Amino acid sequence: MNIKKTHYTTIWLQDESSGKIRIIDQRFLPFELCFKDIDTLSGMYEAIHDMLLRGAPLIGVAGAFGMYLAIRNMPCNKTKSFDGEYLANAARMLVSSRPTAINLKWAVERVIATVTKGKTIEEKSRLALEEAQKIRQEEMENCRLIGVYGLPLIEKIAALKPGKSVNILTHCNAGWLACIDWGTATAPIYMAHDSGIPVHVWVDETRPRNQGARLTAFELGEHGVPHTVIPDNAGGHLMQHGLVDMVIVGSDRTTRTGDVCNKIGTYLKALAAADNNIPFYVALPRSSIDFSIKNGVEEIPVEERDATEVHYVEGLLDGEVKNVRITPEKSKAANYGFDVTPARLVTGLITQCGICSADETNISRLFPDASRATH
Amino acid sequence: MNIKKTHYTTIWLQDESSGKIRIIDQRFLPFELCFKDIDTLSGMYEAIHDMLLRGAPLIGVAGAFGMYLAIRNMPCNKTKSFDGEYLANAARMLVSSRPTAINLKWAVERVIATVTKGKTIEEKSRLALEEAQKIRQEEMENCRLIGVYGLPLIEKIAALKPGKSVNILTHCNAGWLACIDWGTATAPIYMAHDSGIPVHVWVDETRPRNQGARLTAFELGEHGVPHTVIPDNAGGHLMQHGLVDMVIVGSDRTTRTGDVCNKIGTYLKALAAADNNIPFYVALPRSSIDFSIKNGVEEIPVEERDATEVHYVEGLLDGEVKNVRITPEKSKAANYGFDVTPARLVTGLITQCGICSADETNISRLFPDASRATH
Repeated sequence: MNIKKTHYTTIWLQDESSGKIRIIDQRFLPFELCFKDIDTLSGMYEAIHDMLLRGAPLIGVAGAFGMYLAIRNMPCNKTKSFDGEYLANAARMLVSSRPTAINLKWAVERVIATVTKGKTIEEKSRLALEEAQKIRQEEMENCRLIGVYGLPLIEKIAALKPGKSVNILTHCNAGWLACIDWGTATAPIYMAHDSGIPVHVWVDETRPRNQGARLTAFELGEHGVPHTVIPDNAGGHLMQHGLVDMVIVGSDRTTRTGDVCNKIGTYLKALAAADNNIPFYVALPRSSIDFSIKNGVEEIPVEERDATEVHYVEGLLDGEVKNVRITPEKSKAANYGFDVTPARLVTGLITQCGICSADETNISRLFPDASRATH
Repeated sequence: MNIKKTHYTTIWLQDESSGKIRIIDQRFLPFELCFKDIDTLSGMYEAIHDMLLRGAPLIGVAGAFGMYLAIRNMPCNKTKSFDGEYLANAARMLVSSRPTAINLKWAVERVIATVTKGKTIEEKSRLALEEAQKIRQEEMENCRLIGVYGLPLIEKIAALKPGKSVNILTHCNAGWLACIDWGTATAPIYMAHDSGIPVHVWVDETRPRNQGARLTAFELGEHGVPHTVIPDNAGGHLMQHGLVDMVIVGSDRTTRTGDVCNKIGTYLKALAAADNNIPFYVALPRSSIDFSIKNGVEEIPVEERDATEVHYVEGLLDGEVKNVRITPEKSKAANYGFDVTPARLVTGLITQCGICSADETNISRLFPDASRATH
């Protein structure tokens, strides 16, 4: 998608001769657009660990590029066992940077499996780069296809209100900044906008980390998509007054029965959508469906994060990014990262293979080989 | 209620000889506890207008004391007509300080009606002070009675889980800082705590103005009530996992059919409570019931406030209260002040006359003279 009329992705090979990977450093968005060149394994570890980049698909691709950098910089050695140990250590290091992101492990293992075919370091390095690029390409294609399948939903609403904007509410950032390009929840929105359909997005600010106010608002604004930031409290009121035509969110994990785990607060919006007969869609790649579990509320562990994120709010003050404290010094705070929206509240899942309703029968029909593979 | 083990109310006559009214200046809470002495009409106008004090019951009492100060400082005059004009001007000035607060107009008019009985300025001044004190006392008593009627609801839950805390979720500040003492939603909570029932309060931070994180957390903490501040997004997750036993909120306006207008986001918590079979109570004085309207969503106008409150967050930084910007410079924001919770989601109304279910029959049964009076 575009920033200041230039097309960007979140990660790419900047220079093959020096092996430089360039990423958007998301920590200072929307206040400053920073890039960072990474050419070592430890550099990539830090970028993932310190959240210069975040979002499951993006982290996976970063891990694959991290393995490429590890192999490219591998010291020459005559023994096969050294290579194996070196690669295993590099993989362990990368995977430990964000232990919960399943994509990271999967992508790193894919690169390792590929490079065993190479004989020299040069050959292994070339194979690793090719695999990392392939994963990157696949993730972009997944998002593009989610957009292709989701677009008709927006077109249908647009046809019913000619000359008026389609109002879409989203929560958190399931945008291109969390992926490589397009995003998941945002892919149908960008495609609708690019094809001339008037869309307007209600952006939940998404406390406590404000990914909506900071990242989603930034990427929509830079690409030119009309949008309005709202407090997380506002969605129900907007829906009661006919100001929301549909909701699209992403998902961190979805059960085989269609229960959707996503950023804390998603469930409240799903309840309001159901109460007001507004379609509530979840856009997600197949890799986010966990076919091993059935009951989302009971089986998906919800990460409890540091209370500091609730006590403080980060923002811009006199040109610098600062944190202000909003709670009394003596008060405790709790910070649950996600909640689970029961399948009964979900109108449909938009995936790279098509749309299905959120129930076990239809999910397994869309992904018939689901019980065997995980990605 | 208590601050640092000393009992406070939000407004009181500090010194009769000089006519000084002392208030808690709420603008810097929870970071600093400031008091302000007011001894002129214009001082009281500014205190209401600049929101040193807020909350409908408190504003009403402040308006009554404002009239007392106006009369106390009234220049001597021989003509009756001068007095009338002077009083009308003072009343107009006070009422214009917060035009939407119905309590303000009502309290000011009550003082004017009383002082007509006085002959000298001294007599009028004494009558005005007596009436202001009476209104203050009545507001405290309303809140106390809400507590008395609400307490058994908490006692019942406590009896079902011996040795464990009763977990109560509240939204915004319907606490003693919005009233004179006790508060509305908080009155049953303070009474339960004071009588030794273990209670724990989940405090919604209540973006955009963070009245929960700043005021409710402060007053509960100072009075010693265990509580935890949560982002507005968290309530649904807590309810799904059995961590909320009941919800109590206040109300800015409730229809004769039981639709509850309250701080934006209340409706989302009511939906989650209903979805998880958790009782959802609204605590309110009778004066907050608008017997002239029936359909809350359609008939109650919802104030749209300045977008600045969404773009910026106020908090403490290096000992000073500062505002940080959380949205991209180019993004728009919307700021709706309230939403309406349909009566079907409300378990009951806790008032100074008792508890009733939120429907027209039961509300009119509890307030039989409702069609005649408004307070």
